[in-house]
Amino acid sequence: MRILGIDPGIAIVGFGLVEVERADLHMLTYGAITTEAGLPLSTRLYQIGHDMEELIEQCKPNVIAIEELFFNNNITTGIAVAHGRGVILYSAEKCGIPLFEYTPSQVKQAVVGYGKAEKRQVMDMVKRLLKLKAVPRPDDAADALALAICHARSATSMLQRANLAAKQTI
Amino acid sequence: MRILGIDPGIAIVGFGLVEVERADLHMLTYGAITTEAGLPLSTRLYQIGHDMEELIEQCKPNVIAIEELFFNNNITTGIAVAHGRGVILYSAEKCGIPLFEYTPSQVKQAVVGYGKAEKRQVMDMVKRLLKLKAVPRPDDAADALALAICHARSATSMLQRANLAAKQTI
Repeated sequence: MRILGIDPGIAIVGFGLVEVERADLHMLTYGAITTEAGLPLSTRLYQIGHDMEELIEQCKPNVIAIEELFFNNNITTGIAVAHGRGVILYSAEKCGIPLFEYTPSQVKQAVVGYGKAEKRQVMDMVKRLLKLKAVPRPDDAADALALAICHARSATSMLQRANLAAKQTI
Repeated sequence: MRILGIDPGIAIVGFGLVEVERADLHMLTYGAITTEAGLPLSTRLYQIGHDMEELIEQCKPNVIAIEELFFNNNITTGIAVAHGRGVILYSAEKCGIPLFEYTPSQVKQAVVGYGKAEKRQVMDMVKRLLKLKAVPRPDDAADALALAICHARSATSMLQRANLAAKQTI
């Protein structure tokens, strides 16, 4: 099963594609969709939607795992990210890909085993679990891979894989 | 010139189409795109994007006027509205329609002549300026018509109309 992790944003949308077979995790690709700060918001949103559809077409994921949105300090940034996240959800639905949402603490719990882990610990575990030579850059891509790992380790995902395997043996 | 006013939302997206000729305003149509509360957010967003594109195709607006987003009391509602607004901006850009954003106080100033006017005063002025028999329902549609009137009365709009008229006389 292919899981596409997405770290939503407006300037940078991180993505990471992970293949799961039984308990084995393989990183297939990762990167980021970026938009220029000087462009109008509508232009940046159109680009995000367009690139997301292209990404889904190339990656052919079975599911998408995306971060839930929380407002921390900066409400202005939060509003912009919510605009971008809206377009990402729209694109996933348009392409018919099932969508799962995880909070930052669920991701930390699944990847590090501790819901209040430091960002650095998450990055190191992503590198280790996916057998990578270095921590993926940008951070948004590493976060996206963490989301994919989080979904791979969820009960929902295990059930999906069991169903897929059952279908293949019929 | 046809101006499509949009009051963004997730459960209700109000719209109102106004034709402007010199200083004359004519209401062409108004209404709302609605989505069911029980559906997943991504499904509701897809419906908003789909219906927006259909609306733009039917209304053939020269411009879209949309409300800027402010967070009042409820941040959770604000996040959902920002998701919906993101998809609306994406759809406008996809259809190549120029977009103008106005704050609630700019709309009140343009429609009532007072930036801190009451909602009721805005509704009554929408009815009077568009020569309607009653205040349009739902409120979101009346707000959308107010946005279209606001753009019609803006300097940008007057300039656009002058350019359109100049092109027609060449």
